[in-house]
Amino acid sequence: MVDALADALRAQIPAPLVVTDPDRLASYRHDMATFCPSGMPAVAVLARETAHVQHVLKVASDLGVPVVPQGGRTGLSGGANAVDGCIVLSLAGMDRILEIDPANRVAVVEPGVLNAVLSKAAAEQGLFYPPDPSSWEISTVGGNIATNAGGLCCVKYGVTADFVRALEVVLANGEILHTGRRTAKGVAGYDLTRLFVGSEGTLGVITRATLALRPAAEEPRTVAALFPSVAAAGEAVARVVASGLVPSLLEFMDQASLRAANEYRRMGLPDHAAAMLIAQSDAGPERAAAEIATIARHFADAGGFDVIEAEDAQEGELLLNARREAHYAIDRLGSRLIDDVCVPVSRLADFVQRVEKVAADLGLTIPVVGHAGDGNLHPNVVFDATDEDQVRRARQAFDEIMRIGLALGGTITGEHGVGLLKRDWLERELGHVGLRIHRELKRVFDPAGILNPGKVMSLEA
Amino acid sequence: MVDALADALRAQIPAPLVVTDPDRLASYRHDMATFCPSGMPAVAVLARETAHVQHVLKVASDLGVPVVPQGGRTGLSGGANAVDGCIVLSLAGMDRILEIDPANRVAVVEPGVLNAVLSKAAAEQGLFYPPDPSSWEISTVGGNIATNAGGLCCVKYGVTADFVRALEVVLANGEILHTGRRTAKGVAGYDLTRLFVGSEGTLGVITRATLALRPAAEEPRTVAALFPSVAAAGEAVARVVASGLVPSLLEFMDQASLRAANEYRRMGLPDHAAAMLIAQSDAGPERAAAEIATIARHFADAGGFDVIEAEDAQEGELLLNARREAHYAIDRLGSRLIDDVCVPVSRLADFVQRVEKVAADLGLTIPVVGHAGDGNLHPNVVFDATDEDQVRRARQAFDEIMRIGLALGGTITGEHGVGLLKRDWLERELGHVGLRIHRELKRVFDPAGILNPGKVMSLEA
Repeated sequence: MVDALADALRAQIPAPLVVTDPDRLASYRHDMATFCPSGMPAVAVLARETAHVQHVLKVASDLGVPVVPQGGRTGLSGGANAVDGCIVLSLAGMDRILEIDPANRVAVVEPGVLNAVLSKAAAEQGLFYPPDPSSWEISTVGGNIATNAGGLCCVKYGVTADFVRALEVVLANGEILHTGRRTAKGVAGYDLTRLFVGSEGTLGVITRATLALRPAAEEPRTVAALFPSVAAAGEAVARVVASGLVPSLLEFMDQASLRAANEYRRMGLPDHAAAMLIAQSDAGPERAAAEIATIARHFADAGGFDVIEAEDAQEGELLLNARREAHYAIDRLGSRLIDDVCVPVSRLADFVQRVEKVAADLGLTIPVVGHAGDGNLHPNVVFDATDEDQVRRARQAFDEIMRIGLALGGTITGEHGVGLLKRDWLERELGHVGLRIHRELKRVFDPAGILNPGKVMSLEA
Repeated sequence: MVDALADALRAQIPAPLVVTDPDRLASYRHDMATFCPSGMPAVAVLARETAHVQHVLKVASDLGVPVVPQGGRTGLSGGANAVDGCIVLSLAGMDRILEIDPANRVAVVEPGVLNAVLSKAAAEQGLFYPPDPSSWEISTVGGNIATNAGGLCCVKYGVTADFVRALEVVLANGEILHTGRRTAKGVAGYDLTRLFVGSEGTLGVITRATLALRPAAEEPRTVAALFPSVAAAGEAVARVVASGLVPSLLEFMDQASLRAANEYRRMGLPDHAAAMLIAQSDAGPERAAAEIATIARHFADAGGFDVIEAEDAQEGELLLNARREAHYAIDRLGSRLIDDVCVPVSRLADFVQRVEKVAADLGLTIPVVGHAGDGNLHPNVVFDATDEDQVRRARQAFDEIMRIGLALGGTITGEHGVGLLKRDWLERELGHVGLRIHRELKRVFDPAGILNPGKVMSLEA
């Protein structure tokens, strides 16, 4: 069976690109999510061109074999996890930047190009590709599109979706669909581009993307402050929003994440601070300085202390380091479930306080970091994976956090996606009519259910 | 038959809201498009609440009667035109602003609220709702969403779609679907919100919208210049784009539209100028002045003359008046077909020159105005509706303009929509796979084809 499948694939795809060696296959089993099951692929295809993708999908359709598309496998929701007997379709090797067009501020890329590679190529032409998920040095643009990745820039510049103008997509039957357009505006037909952005490989396989770029951003100015309570930090964020400023970055760390950062790098952050906020403005030299001074005043007025305005960009990066490295700092505390709830900005402090209560009630450490300006927070539920009871409590905390997010008018996932991790929660957010429509849309694109099966939602009610 | 329909509607909707008087019905026949057929409705329902909309759709589904949703009927593509025997479903009376939430910069509105009313209400709270189609004083937010309306602000702030966070939609069977979310970010499930934005009433009826607001914009600075050729104006736009500036407005008028404006208001614009550009920056007092000075230099360097920087906002509005009133100025020249092509910004001059050639070849006047910064141009094909040959040539010119737009890598419609006017052109842009997917999506939401039938596309290949 596996031999027949591999033979059918090799009929149109060079043999070295069709992997059947079990040791190599095992390395394609899963992304970076915790607690998500993964199966053993029958074969992995390392696509180099759109025709390879078409052939994979035709063979898969003919033989009824599931296809799991993969990029950098840096996802945090299991969206790229293999299922038993599937074809893993890796787009990582389709990594060419086909065009950067400064006159129209547009880039055309293959899906496997790394975010960092595109960002650097754009910068070399005086342009700026804003989406900046934490994984930007190792995640692919195709994966960023498939999950509608966010990052630190979103508070001013928006999410990945805001930069996708057009897509080439291979449908389940191997046909090519072109969505969207190269132009800045356009309303010819339904917005199929946005339907594919964030669809986590369940509707088709993205093989090319036309992306909007911006003019190069100006050097940011930075301010950081500590707060005596989460409520004070929330108040500070509210004051910044109410002032009408749009910072280019507005990040949050709670006490547990500050302590983790301290232990990781001996950063000398005071252990008694309940929270830290870091803000940047890139509004141009004088303007940014004025905005940062205003933000510093709002931070102080809300009770912030140790308010530090960076002298220059380098010092700004140092201040931001604690936040950038929080991911690794928290990682050293144990196993963890990274949550990703987004709430209305005005509910930020409320959300963090309720998460703190969950941590206390369940006897767990749950450092919270996040994108305060968007209300998008990442509680990291830390646990000892060898302790069955801790695992149980961690899962309970993870669910409780989503429940709190929904109760505060938020969403179960701000930027990490549903994948396998939050599949059972999707209906609570969408409602049964929404879920039914999702299933019907899925059937339009993938009637046989071969595309990344089991991800985002189950196909049956 | 009509009586049975009206009776069924009145079973749940107050009788005065169910219109059957033929004279009144006639006023609901069509929007502002030219050359689009319209039928006679059997009945018009002036909905006041979501339950009315649900009842209309249930009755329509039961009886197999088409439903044509309408807002302000200011559309330019016939998307709101009645078909014979249909129920016109007017949302204009659902015009409440339900909430403006400054802490989260969000508004929740019913679909019938006028764009201008929402804009003003937001401004009163120090907030800004950017979408500004020319019709903003008479068009509804629901209509703006259904057509993904653009305007003058788009070059910096984006289109209507960029401000829609969540929708309440009544489906063809009367069920309520909630899409999207109130938060700034969110990736739970497919982007159904964007699927409805721009779908022109063919997938469901929008009964409530949650919209993102921005902080109040700062007072803009303005510069205008005349150009000796369209190519020089195109070069000026290219220089502005290459400089990395993002103006808050960048508008174009060609010679024919300048002349029309002159005749309309005796504006004293030189008749020998081939084109005019007007730019604004709202980047804050000093910064805006610096940006406008830079743009003025780019205009001059590209060959612009009579470069005028407005002394203050009032003078800026005066400069912008010629552009704002172009619509009315051109209207006085005769009947017209307003086209709406969007091309890559670098092809702007090329596009206008080719349109000029079409005008010369066919012996027609085709003033061109548009949103230069987005490459979105509105050639206005002027003709005498009583002259059969002119009508024929006008239609030919209209088609030729879309052909040119597509050939230059553009789209047949940047912001006015497909409606009836461009339905036959949609497949050329989408391709047959794209059109097939559109039809299948339509069937998911509207299996019986009762929602705004015949608009955007025909249901059969």
